[in-house]
Parts: sequence; structure tokens; C-alpha cells
Amino acid sequence: MDEQINSRALAPVGVFDSGVGGLTVAREIMRQLPNEKIVYFGDTARVPYGSKSKETILRYSRQIIRFLKTKGVKAIVVACNTASALALEEIRDEIDMPIIGVVKPGAKVAVEKTVNKRVGVIATEATISSGLYTDYIKAQDADVTVYSKACPLFVPLVEEGWLKDSVTEEVARRYLEELKEQNIDTLVLGCTHYPLLRNMIGKLMGDEVTLVNPAYETAVSLGELLEEKGLAAGNENRYASEMYDFYVSDAAEKFKKFANSILPFRIENISQINIEEY
Amino acid sequence: MDEQINSRALAPVGVFDSGVGGLTVAREIMRQLPNEKIVYFGDTARVPYGSKSKETILRYSRQIIRFLKTKGVKAIVVACNTASALALEEIRDEIDMPIIGVVKPGAKVAVEKTVNKRVGVIATEATISSGLYTDYIKAQDADVTVYSKACPLFVPLVEEGWLKDSVTEEVARRYLEELKEQNIDTLVLGCTHYPLLRNMIGKLMGDEVTLVNPAYETAVSLGELLEEKGLAAGNENRYASEMYDFYVSDAAEKFKKFANSILPFRIENISQINIEEY
Repeated sequence: MDEQINSRALAPVGVFDSGVGGLTVAREIMRQLPNEKIVYFGDTARVPYGSKSKETILRYSRQIIRFLKTKGVKAIVVACNTASALALEEIRDEIDMPIIGVVKPGAKVAVEKTVNKRVGVIATEATISSGLYTDYIKAQDADVTVYSKACPLFVPLVEEGWLKDSVTEEVARRYLEELKEQNIDTLVLGCTHYPLLRNMIGKLMGDEVTLVNPAYETAVSLGELLEEKGLAAGNENRYASEMYDFYVSDAAEKFKKFANSILPFRIENISQINIEEY
Repeated sequence: MDEQINSRALAPVGVFDSGVGGLTVAREIMRQLPNEKIVYFGDTARVPYGSKSKETILRYSRQIIRFLKTKGVKAIVVACNTASALALEEIRDEIDMPIIGVVKPGAKVAVEKTVNKRVGVIATEATISSGLYTDYIKAQDADVTVYSKACPLFVPLVEEGWLKDSVTEEVARRYLEELKEQNIDTLVLGCTHYPLLRNMIGKLMGDEVTLVNPAYETAVSLGELLEEKGLAAGNENRYASEMYDFYVSDAAEKFKKFANSILPFRIENISQINIEEY
């Protein structure tokens, strides 16, 4: 293997999200691919993405990728479902490095898990409107019927910290009611905040429904993709002083607090940047 | 009166907000000052402001004012409580035209209305953290005690359209509980979305509590300020073909739908711009 490829392989993976939610994906990459360095960007100055237009999400995603490139990343993970659904296909043609999102891996697992071929997807308004989960699921198995439901209050409820709360449960009951009636056996948690409501959603849907968190499968897909491209890091990175770098567009302190509540170690190195300059 | 002042007086007033909420202020200006043209900007690409930092809100407000200046406005109304609380004082020194926000007028009415000198303020996290309502109220009457409460779920609930809903009522009951216990007789609705929950909040607080909507007093203050500066429009504008122009940074169609549900006439002329270019 020539030296140039080797040094590219030691470069970090860029991971981005509209805010903190993508940390559930970053966490999965840290677990499964412990040799990989990560540069994470959370667009906390413009969060949330889930109610915004395709045009705007595309512009934001392009800015973030330009920023991540300045950090020398070797591949990009779009850890935000909304950006994966609205921007990924167009961006893939514009950049010269591997890029994956969370929608395709999530759709893949859903098709593998369903037995009765009735799959539910819950996500933001923008992700549901894009129809991309349905497209990917049906591309793999045209016999699967997909039932989708936007759940716009889940993100603010999670950010308010009302994870085990009667109000959140009542909101969830309403959102999930029509999916329950459709007798689905598999439900995709199509927004990175939703795994934080996993227990409640699981209780409401019942044991017979499998919940799919695309984060796990995204990390698997990333590992495969890096191997395929000869970009997987060996254990040379193990002695790096800083494996993980975090950047946000606003309120680094608030981000740090949330990050430290969901990551398996404390993070200190968070920098705030002006993303509009990229 | 010389001609230059006259032509300045015919220029529009710039009104801005993080999104649709400021339309409740624009509506009040339309009612009270029917001779005034308005250029409205809603920052729908970066909404909400209520959870973001002062530094970011300042940068956004400066961009918007640069944009409004390109439309030849004669004065600016910061119709967003968060931007009024976090950015107005610094911006006032930077620009060469009259500018007012909604916090000072809201605080003024609260002091006028309270009898027992116990005033409540509900608003976004950022507005409450700024402490500005408390500062303005106490500057006018140091004997008033102010009880503040951030209500972060109100904006997403309003945007979900759950205005008369048991979930919203339960959320409101929790947020308002501690204010009720403080025996306040006046409550400031310190976020432009909250007047849309006025009936529910009024019912929960009881008839003995006066609800203050800063929009009304903001329009009064604007009228006084324009008169004082010789900038009030006469009825020459009455024959203008376009009294009101609307600009947004994202999703013009969605904005139009919301606007048409709260304004007393249908609007058609909404343009989408890239605010980051200003």
C-alpha cells in the first residue's frame, strides 16, 4: 500500500448534524470503529432543520462540507436525517470523497427486520415530505408497505428534557396511534433525537414491533465503505492525543452539557465557528 | 417642512422577527398607523431565536437591518422579543435611524396595569435569561417584583397548531403553576407567539390577572416616535399600490399560509432572499 493512501486513511471522518442529535450517530461510530478520528459539526445556530426547505438545507449542508474539508476529513457522514433526505443525493455528485447518510442504512435494516412487510417511519416534517425512506425501502423490497408520520413536537420535548413524562407520552400516543392501527411490525426512528424516546415509543407500540435506530447500521455502512476505499484507519491513531474534535455554530457550552450527558466520556475541546463564512 | 423630510416620511417602516410571530406586531401597526408602509422580514431559515446565544442573535439582527436598509426604511421595529432583549441596545448605537423593540413597551404597560406590584413575565429561554423585562420594569417602578418563567414548548405547540388542546393546556398548567402561586395580578406575554394562546393562558391564570400583549403598546410607541422625529406618514401613502412587502429567508409558501390566517387581508407579495449575503 503506498504511503499516500496510508496517510489519507489516518485522516478524520467528518460527521455533521443540525445540532446535538447526530451525537447518537457519532457515539455509534466511536464504539464500532474505535480507530477512526472524528470531526463533528453541529449547526446549533440554525437548528432545527426539520421544518425548513430543501433549498435551505442544501445550502447549509454545502457550507458545512466546505468547513469539514478545511479539517482534512477523508469521508463524510450526514448524521442528520433531514439533511440525508433532502441534500445527500445532490451533494454526492459535487464532492470528491465518500459520503453516506443515515436514511439508506435505516431503510436497509427495516427491510431486513420486517416479517409482515408493514413498516412505519417517524421523522421530521421535512424528512417525511421528502418520501426518501419510502423510496429506499421500496427499492429494496417493493412488497413492503410504508406508513409515515411526522412528529414535529418530539425534538422540542427531548430538548426540554421531558423524556419520561406524561405530556410526552400523550403526544407520542397521538402521533403513533395511526401507525398502531396499521399493524406494522417494524418502526424506523427516522430522526436522531428519537432514540432518546426509545423506551416510551417501545412501550406504546408493544413488544411485537421492532424499533430501528439507523445510527447502528450507519456506523456499519461507514466501516464497510472505508474498507472498500482503502481508507480505514489502522491502530496508528490509537496514540493520537485528540481523537475527537467538536465544532458548533452557536452556544458551545450548552452543546457540551448535552454531549457529556450522552457520550461515554467527557469532552472539553469544543470550538464555536461562524458557519456562514464557509 | 422641507421636502427632504417629507419624502423620508413616506418611506416604509422595517419590521423584523425570527419568523411569523412578529406578524402580530405588524398587524397592530397596520391597525393603529394605517398610513405607514411596512417592509416585513421573517428569518424563517434560522428560526427559532429563543434558544440561541446573544452573539448569534446580534449577528443575525445586524444582517437583517442591512437588508432592510436596502429597502429604504425610515425606522425599524424589532418585533421579536428575543432580538429586542439580546441585540437592541447594542444595535441602537450603530445605526442612524429610529429603532424600537417590544420589550420596553411591554414593560411599560405592565407597570401601568399592576396594582399589587407583582408582575409575571413568560418568554423564551433567551429572553428570560437576559433579564431585560425585569430591568425595564424595575427601572420604572423599583417596588414591583417580577416573576419570570421560560416556556420553550409554547412556540412549537403554536406552530403545530395545537392552540385549543389538552396537551397544550397541561404544558401551560405546568409552566404557569409557579407564577399563579406568586399571586401576580399582571402577566406579560413576552414572545410574539404567545398571544395566540391568550384564551388558554387567561383561563388558567384567572380573571383577576391582566394579560399584557406588548404588540399594542409597541405600535403606540412607534407612532409617538415617528411624530417626534417628523417621520410620520401623512395620507399620501393611502394611494400606494403596495403598502406592505414581505420577505422571508426560507419557505415563503408556508409563511404565506400562516400570515393569511392571522392578518386581516390576504397577502401575495412574499419574496424569499438569502439573508446570509447581507
